Amino acid sequence: MDIEVRYALDTFYFLVLGAFVMWMAAGFTMLEAGLVRAKNTTEILTKNVGLYAVSCIMFLIVGYNLMYPATTISSFIPGLDFILSAADNSAEAVTAGGDDAPYYSSLSDFMFQVVFVATAMSIVSGAVAERMKLFAFLAFAVVLTSVIYPVQGYWNWGGGFLTGSFSYFDYAGSGTVHLCGAVAALAGVLMLGPRKGKYRPDGSIRAIPGANLPLATLGMFILWLGWFGFNGGSELAVSSVDSANNVARVFVNTNMAAAGGVVAALLTAKAMFGKADLSMTLNGALAGLVSITASPLSPTPLIATIIGVVGGIIVVFSIIALDKARIDDPVGAISVHGTAGIFGVLVVPLTNGDADFVSQIVGIVSIFAWTFIASMIVWGILKAVIGIRVTEEEEDEGLDYSECGMEAYPEFTSGGSQRSSA
Amino acid sequence: MDIEVRYALDTFYFLVLGAFVMWMAAGFTMLEAGLVRAKNTTEILTKNVGLYAVSCIMFLIVGYNLMYPATTISSFIPGLDFILSAADNSAEAVTAGGDDAPYYSSLSDFMFQVVFVATAMSIVSGAVAERMKLFAFLAFAVVLTSVIYPVQGYWNWGGGFLTGSFSYFDYAGSGTVHLCGAVAALAGVLMLGPRKGKYRPDGSIRAIPGANLPLATLGMFILWLGWFGFNGGSELAVSSVDSANNVARVFVNTNMAAAGGVVAALLTAKAMFGKADLSMTLNGALAGLVSITASPLSPTPLIATIIGVVGGIIVVFSIIALDKARIDDPVGAISVHGTAGIFGVLVVPLTNGDADFVSQIVGIVSIFAWTFIASMIVWGILKAVIGIRVTEEEEDEGLDYSECGMEAYPEFTSGGSQRSSA
Amino acid sequence: MDIEVRYALDTFYFLVLGAFVMWMAAGFTMLEAGLVRAKNTTEILTKNVGLYAVSCIMFLIVGYNLMYPATTISSFIPGLDFILSAADNSAEAVTAGGDDAPYYSSLSDFMFQVVFVATAMSIVSGAVAERMKLFAFLAFAVVLTSVIYPVQGYWNWGGGFLTGSFSYFDYAGSGTVHLCGAVAALAGVLMLGPRKGKYRPDGSIRAIPGANLPLATLGMFILWLGWFGFNGGSELAVSSVDSANNVARVFVNTNMAAAGGVVAALLTAKAMFGKADLSMTLNGALAGLVSITASPLSPTPLIATIIGVVGGIIVVFSIIALDKARIDDPVGAISVHGTAGIFGVLVVPLTNGDADFVSQIVGIVSIFAWTFIASMIVWGILKAVIGIRVTEEEEDEGLDYSECGMEAYPEFTSGGSQRSSA
Repeated sequence: MDIEVRYALDTFYFLVLGAFVMWMAAGFTMLEAGLVRAKNTTEILTKNVGLYAVSCIMFLIVGYNLMYPATTISSFIPGLDFILSAADNSAEAVTAGGDDAPYYSSLSDFMFQVVFVATAMSIVSGAVAERMKLFAFLAFAVVLTSVIYPVQGYWNWGGGFLTGSFSYFDYAGSGTVHLCGAVAALAGVLMLGPRKGKYRPDGSIRAIPGANLPLATLGMFILWLGWFGFNGGSELAVSSVDSANNVARVFVNTNMAAAGGVVAALLTAKAMFGKADLSMTLNGALAGLVSITASPLSPTPLIATIIGVVGGIIVVFSIIALDKARIDDPVGAISVHGTAGIFGVLVVPLTNGDADFVSQIVGIVSIFAWTFIASMIVWGILKAVIGIRVTEEEEDEGLDYSECGMEAYPEFTSGGSQRSSA
Repeated sequence: MDIEVRYALDTFYFLVLGAFVMWMAAGFTMLEAGLVRAKNTTEILTKNVGLYAVSCIMFLIVGYNLMYPATTISSFIPGLDFILSAADNSAEAVTAGGDDAPYYSSLSDFMFQVVFVATAMSIVSGAVAERMKLFAFLAFAVVLTSVIYPVQGYWNWGGGFLTGSFSYFDYAGSGTVHLCGAVAALAGVLMLGPRKGKYRPDGSIRAIPGANLPLATLGMFILWLGWFGFNGGSELAVSSVDSANNVARVFVNTNMAAAGGVVAALLTAKAMFGKADLSMTLNGALAGLVSITASPLSPTPLIATIIGVVGGIIVVFSIIALDKARIDDPVGAISVHGTAGIFGVLVVPLTNGDADFVSQIVGIVSIFAWTFIASMIVWGILKAVIGIRVTEEEEDEGLDYSECGMEAYPEFTSGGSQRSSA
Repeated sequence: MDIEVRYALDTFYFLVLGAFVMWMAAGFTMLEAGLVRAKNTTEILTKNVGLYAVSCIMFLIVGYNLMYPATTISSFIPGLDFILSAADNSAEAVTAGGDDAPYYSSLSDFMFQVVFVATAMSIVSGAVAERMKLFAFLAFAVVLTSVIYPVQGYWNWGGGFLTGSFSYFDYAGSGTVHLCGAVAALAGVLMLGPRKGKYRPDGSIRAIPGANLPLATLGMFILWLGWFGFNGGSELAVSSVDSANNVARVFVNTNMAAAGGVVAALLTAKAMFGKADLSMTLNGALAGLVSITASPLSPTPLIATIIGVVGGIIVVFSIIALDKARIDDPVGAISVHGTAGIFGVLVVPLTNGDADFVSQIVGIVSIFAWTFIASMIVWGILKAVIGIRVTEEEEDEGLDYSECGMEAYPEFTSGGSQRSSA
């Protein structure tokens, strides 16, 4: 009976931490909604709700099977069988024991994986905010979550070449999830161009402040909480002494890296701008989290803090550099998930003997190249066929009118007059 | 000792998922606060906090005992004994084993049940928003949570006729919780009438936009997360291979149905109104969740998605139909929880061999009739004795002044001038 | 193997409930951000994010080792060893059994404790809002979380005199966490003085309404949810029948006390002011939670409700009394955590035979005296060296400009004009 309890505990662990990761969808939504202007808020809310739903459906029908071809749940194979059954492990198979015996529910695994693809897709959303057409974005989400993400995810977690032929080590996905999302975002931003008025003809950069910073801060806290699931669940087991200890260390290190990122970004921004820049601080926390994600188990808590510190410093400079390069990312997602994601992957060999720099670099290059090229093709097709950018008039007026037909804060902003002045 | 660990795991599972359901109280609060006008926001916040507290207290003192008369915790019987003890299962009773041996803490069961009654009551809150007196509402909450909900809850989960004499099947309460709440809301709305100015003399309907859509979106995400507890906990056990598999499937299906509801409502609204209507999208997610709640275990994930899709389409038409019938429900709660609740109960026999249509219809009719009649009587008494509707002047000015004496957003709206202009 | 599963379950329980407590950081942030004026919101957000990060880092490096000197994790001792390893319990030590065998991961214990110190620090933040310098506050946070909190925490939980020489009983920290934080806040407020314009020359008190009540209400709900972790995790185990029953009772009692506090504060405020005062209601919930925290296991659920009721009444009078004494606490934190904290500690002997009044009073006096004196010294040094209060001009203009350089709601308030009018 004991082996049954372990199966139950590991399954429950997976589901609870999967629910934490699902909660990150709310975190991205609040973060992005807080950092855009009021007139584009309804649209970004709709986009985030929509992308989460699209991710779940496409990953169920196509992506999961592509990423984990060896899965034993035949029902995930698209086709009639898929509709007729969703078998899980039998009690016999579990209690038979042995190295191949399943030790958690296959569907709990799907639950945990599906919220990861939604995370990758959420990263794209913020970077292309305030000027992309809603349905072009959702069309891209269909392709990313059914093909682009699963293909490179397979390379790492599905048995592909990164772990088969190389020693690529990426525990919870600094590269596989965060870099992938950031690169897809970068491709989108390059195809889309900056927001109107962001870069002035005289070369100066216009700061476009977010409309609701408490919301952005809430989003950051949600992400921080959700990250305990993201990293803590990636141990894939908790029911032995060793795995329980590992999950505990992952929780502690995840928390410490975020704390390090906060302090580093806060002080860096204070030193550079003379002010305690909240949006940099929020991005510092997230950069710390992304940085530790590739190997949250190997460092001591103090080293984890330092990794977060470096991530928090890097992100400030990355955001400034991208802005100088006129890559307009309203929420800093490319820097947080891309730059810090690369750093996270590269730092692994320093604390983890199972990793080597060559494999890590091969991983980064592969993920970047595949995701960038595939995304450029998809964005390009969408641009040619349905267009990906709203009209200048719609951008002035705000996407909330043109795309959603309703304001996010009708009583707080100048509202009707905003429209009539357009 | 093994049986002790199982007891512990099932108890812990119950408590964690019960906490997720408690979190739904915050979800309803944010959803409703985001969908009403600024001037009625403080009141709806107060109402939601108050109803949750009232639900807990009344269900402890009266409701739980009424709904589960066979419970062995004598302390729940109102009276002296209740104050003196709150005994739980002894280690001896647990380890004795056997079919009757308790396998989770009785108090964890109370914790899980009490958050369900709060959910039912939360449904009422949104539908009667912007014109009902706060204390009339809280008085109704006292009666619903101590008598109306428990009586019909007993029919399904306490050993009553729906499961005793019929094969009514309602896993987590599409009927028992959501329909019950929606019908109580419907009775309240009929007794109360529409908001002033909602239906114009010329027959046209005035759209009254919510003041804070990010808040409403946050509320939806909270509810989505909480629903993993609502449905996932309703398996009542996780410690065996079968129950763990079941909980995993419930998580996956719950998530997929919500995703289906989002996509369906988004596309339906786009097709009908030409815009990606965020409030319809949010209600689509919730309708998907309500639809799957009666049987989240029996469908495959793809069928669960389709059930959500149908729920998401139905809710759009239901909202439009109720509006045409001049049943003014500011947040769409009657459609989300009532219409989709009925659909959820009715769809069970298609995927679940333990259910039949006759029993399901008997369940719907019984729950509807009892809740509607009892609610009408209570609302009627309240109307006669203390009045349930604020004055026209108070409604113009906003309930925040008359009921709570403070504005929700004093610096964002015209504020003081709003008052002086009344 | 069975003992391994118990170890795993207790560790997982600790981590999940620790994550719930971490979530309270978001709760305090939202509560405080909702209760201050718009012009000070960015600063309070930055402060809260910053204090959480500082708490984690300082408690890791200094505080944890000071509070729990007997811990076996040598790596927590500051020094080289700390950087080189973070050992946890070996499987051999766990399965050896015996009374001294560890039954959960040491790092999971650190995770659970570190979020408690962050909670204590969060309490300070609200009370000194709207006029304190950000970096003076963060400097205080460094000292409180590395020394002031750990020293008195050691007296109760680390093996110090309160539990060694006295029978001080404080299950989850009504005194050790909440009173400590409130006293540090009181010292800060006394050193800082009231906000400009709060107390008029003619002796009247000016009400300064919070800018965003939905946010404050969300914060309260987050705290309520997080408190299940705060109290529920303080049982320190869940894997036996008795401990599982205990955790269940703690969950129920925590929930009931909060419910009692809501109803009591709502009715008290209604009776006194004629209105359903939302901010009092929110503080009533929190006061109920603080009141039950010293002994959430011993009362029956009904007695727990009554303890919450008393806490909810006390807090209303405490808030009024502090205001009359011209102790300006913008969010009521000193009353919620200090006054209700003292009540919580004092009420323990009524339901818990292991406690006596003398020990409880010794505990309160010790915690108060140490925290107050130490805090006054630190605030005094900070005042002398770097200053703790912003200039009058900066206070008028709002701390968001002077400290953070960005507005929280640039489009909702008069914004730019607010600045130019300063």
